[in-house]
Amino acid sequence: MSKYVIGVDVGGTNVKLGVLNPSGKVLSRSSFSTKTFIKSSDSLIDAVCEAVLALAGKEGLLKRDIAGVGIGLPGLIDVDKGVVRVLPNIPGWSDVPLKRIMEKKLDLLVQLENDVNMITLGEWEYGAGKGIENLICMTLGTGVGAGLILNNEIYRGTGFAAGEIGHMPLNEEGPECTCGGWGCFERYVGNKRLQKEAAKIFGKNDISLEDVYRRAVEGKKKALKFWEMVGEKVGNGLVGPVNILNPECVIIGGGVSRSLEFMKSAIEGVIKRRCMKTQAEMVRVIKARLDDDAGIVGAEVLIRHEKKN
Amino acid sequence: MSKYVIGVDVGGTNVKLGVLNPSGKVLSRSSFSTKTFIKSSDSLIDAVCEAVLALAGKEGLLKRDIAGVGIGLPGLIDVDKGVVRVLPNIPGWSDVPLKRIMEKKLDLLVQLENDVNMITLGEWEYGAGKGIENLICMTLGTGVGAGLILNNEIYRGTGFAAGEIGHMPLNEEGPECTCGGWGCFERYVGNKRLQKEAAKIFGKNDISLEDVYRRAVEGKKKALKFWEMVGEKVGNGLVGPVNILNPECVIIGGGVSRSLEFMKSAIEGVIKRRCMKTQAEMVRVIKARLDDDAGIVGAEVLIRHEKKN
Repeated sequence: MSKYVIGVDVGGTNVKLGVLNPSGKVLSRSSFSTKTFIKSSDSLIDAVCEAVLALAGKEGLLKRDIAGVGIGLPGLIDVDKGVVRVLPNIPGWSDVPLKRIMEKKLDLLVQLENDVNMITLGEWEYGAGKGIENLICMTLGTGVGAGLILNNEIYRGTGFAAGEIGHMPLNEEGPECTCGGWGCFERYVGNKRLQKEAAKIFGKNDISLEDVYRRAVEGKKKALKFWEMVGEKVGNGLVGPVNILNPECVIIGGGVSRSLEFMKSAIEGVIKRRCMKTQAEMVRVIKARLDDDAGIVGAEVLIRHEKKN
Repeated sequence: MSKYVIGVDVGGTNVKLGVLNPSGKVLSRSSFSTKTFIKSSDSLIDAVCEAVLALAGKEGLLKRDIAGVGIGLPGLIDVDKGVVRVLPNIPGWSDVPLKRIMEKKLDLLVQLENDVNMITLGEWEYGAGKGIENLICMTLGTGVGAGLILNNEIYRGTGFAAGEIGHMPLNEEGPECTCGGWGCFERYVGNKRLQKEAAKIFGKNDISLEDVYRRAVEGKKKALKFWEMVGEKVGNGLVGPVNILNPECVIIGGGVSRSLEFMKSAIEGVIKRRCMKTQAEMVRVIKARLDDDAGIVGAEVLIRHEKKN
């Protein structure tokens, strides 16, 4: 009996939804702005439930056609209990038993997951990481996070907080970080820092990373140099995780990954120079493949695994 | 049918053996010097086989009483194929199919494992890590290594090289390392470096880390200060692994761990200051418990898991 899954990707800016067939294909999509509903968690939950039902209706799905709803959220999620512990960028969420609330409202199986883990599940099953036993799926954006597939399973850690690759220290001193630590990887390659560096290099305060990407596509030397420099930084941040986890590949997603073609040889160069021999020889650096659907497609994997347990 | 396991711990100095009952208890031990047999891998293999049979005989065990022989070796081990890839500190070992050779010689199941992973399996099942789902078991000595239990399983990595916590970079520059990288954790807390620091602090070239331990036990201020300083370094090296893996505990073994009582509050202090909130709150730093038997006891777990598969 092949059933459909509805994937929901809750972001600080938009909520995206998609109906997934049993092969992880997105059959139809919808989205709405998060901002209208950030007064309270209740109003956002209501909006998500309505959007789920509306999308199911549009696809002509009855409840018995739907295996479940998988929701990715940007924060600390107790996956086992179905509770959202905290969403740093969406106010009003603290210990919300979202699974229970939504299951009652929708009369459907609901499963929660951290957004980066959701992307990781999607890339692992339907994207760049297909068939790979051990991988790091890193997202480069304002924040730098990662999901880990280890021994053919998602690894979430004891408090569901694993994968914080952006908060590995790269220096004994180094700049202070929002996490309370210092010298964190995110301070070196987070969007804000990269934008600042770009502004300095190009002498233009409002230059965006997309601008620098486009200039690199046009073959402009300064832009190519910029991405090479970012690649060096990314490579340096990957040495520790690659040495400790000896993964088969590192998948790079998130906004900045668009420029991976211009960073890749620098990243690989650092790994070759600085990682241990076995680790360096076997790890491949590859681009995430699911793009905008990355946060939705993983819902199919999440619900399927849940049904098995 | 309860069967016995023979554990073998191959080190650069000594080979230790033990007969284990089904509860991981060491019933009897033997050992011999590695050095006599480092002319070739063949002579060392013969010596290990003889020692296994002698110990079994001493305990009055027949072959049918023995579930298998678990061997820990200090190097890169292909656990699935039963091949020793390389032992950095024992010459003459390169791609040796040790499992096949020994099974033929002994007519017993033989299973290989990296020595640090063997210690980790022992501590997890019979030592400080009993019942824990996610842990890092770190050994502090000349080298700094770790074994990882993640999602209730040993995690070996794609090329059996995972756990190289000693080769996480702690600094962008930092001292060059034997691994080819630079700024590695091991350069900060490996025995050689600590001994150098001790010599400087105490103005005595031949002071040993054991001496400094004893002075700390006696309450000498300089020695207490020394271990506090080491604790700071160890703590700084743990921030990255703890943030990425969100383990329930970090077990610390190896020679230097004897002084853990004098380092512990410094380690915990750094973790509290520098790690992310969730990770810092739940991780405990504990001392390894199996001491000299650590490299042997894991064999029981190794053989039991192998029998299940």
